[in-house]
Amino acid sequence: MDHMRAIVITEPGGPEVLSWREVPDPRPARGEVLIEVTASAVNRADLLQRKGFYDPPPGTSPYPGLEVSGVVAEAGPDVLGFEPGDRVCALLAGGGYAERVAVPWQQVLPVPNGVSEIESAGLPEVACTVWSNVFMTARLRKGETLLVHGGASGIGTMAIQLAKAYGSRVVATAGSPEKLARCLELGADEVVNYRTEDFAEKVTADVILDIIGGPYLERNVAALNSGGRLVVIGLQGGTRGQLNLGALLAKRASVHGTTLRARPVDEKGVIVRGVKDNVWPLIEAGAVRPVVEATVPLAEAAEAHRLLENGQHIGKILLVR
Amino acid sequence: MDHMRAIVITEPGGPEVLSWREVPDPRPARGEVLIEVTASAVNRADLLQRKGFYDPPPGTSPYPGLEVSGVVAEAGPDVLGFEPGDRVCALLAGGGYAERVAVPWQQVLPVPNGVSEIESAGLPEVACTVWSNVFMTARLRKGETLLVHGGASGIGTMAIQLAKAYGSRVVATAGSPEKLARCLELGADEVVNYRTEDFAEKVTADVILDIIGGPYLERNVAALNSGGRLVVIGLQGGTRGQLNLGALLAKRASVHGTTLRARPVDEKGVIVRGVKDNVWPLIEAGAVRPVVEATVPLAEAAEAHRLLENGQHIGKILLVR
Repeated sequence: MDHMRAIVITEPGGPEVLSWREVPDPRPARGEVLIEVTASAVNRADLLQRKGFYDPPPGTSPYPGLEVSGVVAEAGPDVLGFEPGDRVCALLAGGGYAERVAVPWQQVLPVPNGVSEIESAGLPEVACTVWSNVFMTARLRKGETLLVHGGASGIGTMAIQLAKAYGSRVVATAGSPEKLARCLELGADEVVNYRTEDFAEKVTADVILDIIGGPYLERNVAALNSGGRLVVIGLQGGTRGQLNLGALLAKRASVHGTTLRARPVDEKGVIVRGVKDNVWPLIEAGAVRPVVEATVPLAEAAEAHRLLENGQHIGKILLVR
Repeated sequence: MDHMRAIVITEPGGPEVLSWREVPDPRPARGEVLIEVTASAVNRADLLQRKGFYDPPPGTSPYPGLEVSGVVAEAGPDVLGFEPGDRVCALLAGGGYAERVAVPWQQVLPVPNGVSEIESAGLPEVACTVWSNVFMTARLRKGETLLVHGGASGIGTMAIQLAKAYGSRVVATAGSPEKLARCLELGADEVVNYRTEDFAEKVTADVILDIIGGPYLERNVAALNSGGRLVVIGLQGGTRGQLNLGALLAKRASVHGTTLRARPVDEKGVIVRGVKDNVWPLIEAGAVRPVVEATVPLAEAAEAHRLLENGQHIGKILLVR
């Protein structure tokens, strides 16, 4: 195995710059597991990387792809808990759109019981994002209200289910009747169509998980309850906004910005361990389910990017070998 | 004792509206301690209250004064740990500029050994503010850098000493050579004259304790290290600012707004307990000292307000019977 195939970004641009090519095979370094990939999934960050706005962290695979599922092909030195043949899924800093990928063992999880190996490719990013932000950073408590922007996205569908499973009230925003209906099916107590209604006039929340950024900042702070926590994990609307510190002080509230990809392996390991201990059992019990919009052949990743950019999807778009 | 004297705000306005008058005596309610006041201290919030911008929380004494020291005159029902004759100081929601004040027992502390009863009147606000914000909210860790704006203020002088005692590096800003020299004497590792230098060009920090608000927001975020926490506790410069969420996400940083006065008694109790366990021993060991600029007779509180508004002071201005 000296070569494999991977999706290469030939130059910054549209989906057409994604090319299925022969590239050198990755080797597992110390502490890394080499995974023979069964499936991957597309994330919004992949679109930014393709356009040249989001380079991989230093030392990371140049190919896109922040999560995979598959089978352990080889375990490098000092790997704990994984052996060749294990069925796994993993959180990556890059390189998932490929036939093989090497990843630190701390970022690897078993495929949960009751979920197919293909479906599990879409779980690591959403589970780690929601667990780390809503539960570790914002410490959402039972009985509190969570407001999820983009409730029909991959992250949104996981956030709704997980917060409900932990006993919170959930409000979700989305932009179409179909998406709003799906949010309700997944357990949301209330939904807001952001195209026709102003969420800040309808809703207050203890924790807000936001993907819009600047344009929502003022209204998100206005919608926070006393002691509320706003966690911004995406900037789809823009990077800058007005912050009303007077409101923030009066409410004793906080604004958190986070990303997952650039964190050190040890921090990712803590998150992955938290997911294994707290999210995986809910998935195995059927209380939280993967939500998949479509599966697309890995070699046709460009088509998956077009689907994601189109924005009509609910849940994850998977890439399969 | 049917009557006592207190500083009454006769109408919103300048220091001249503070009038030393006879008023009804307070009575301790369930869970409250009645303190015969030895001394109080002025806080910037008192100036806002005098101007009519910061009304006391519902149910609170209408007289200004957020802290006192004195002797327990009476303990109401269900008070734990205090008896008449105890020498104490206390964190108040109001009413400190008076001969007597009733306060929930959870907000009362013993006078620390080695500190005079008068000096101790200036400790509760600064100790509770620094402990709750820098250590409980921002979780400043040993080896991290704390940036304190207004290092020569009452809060600043406590923040510098406490952070140094806990093994952090401290940078302080102030507006005069005398104040900067005093910050260095108190243990600051580095100082910045904000009138002649831009702190954001000189300093990075893991935790920033800010009293300026809007005008500093953008530069405070620029000065944060990865994982940094900005805690805004004052808005002397204005309430609104531009927040660069792109920088916040890239740094995985957070902005917290807090106030002490409006918190429920139980939350104040947790803070006061933390101060007693973690700050009082350092004061009793001499590692942290009260910093007092002046003592002014309580009946002449107007003069103390003029001193505070003048802004030349270093540390606390006390009011004595």
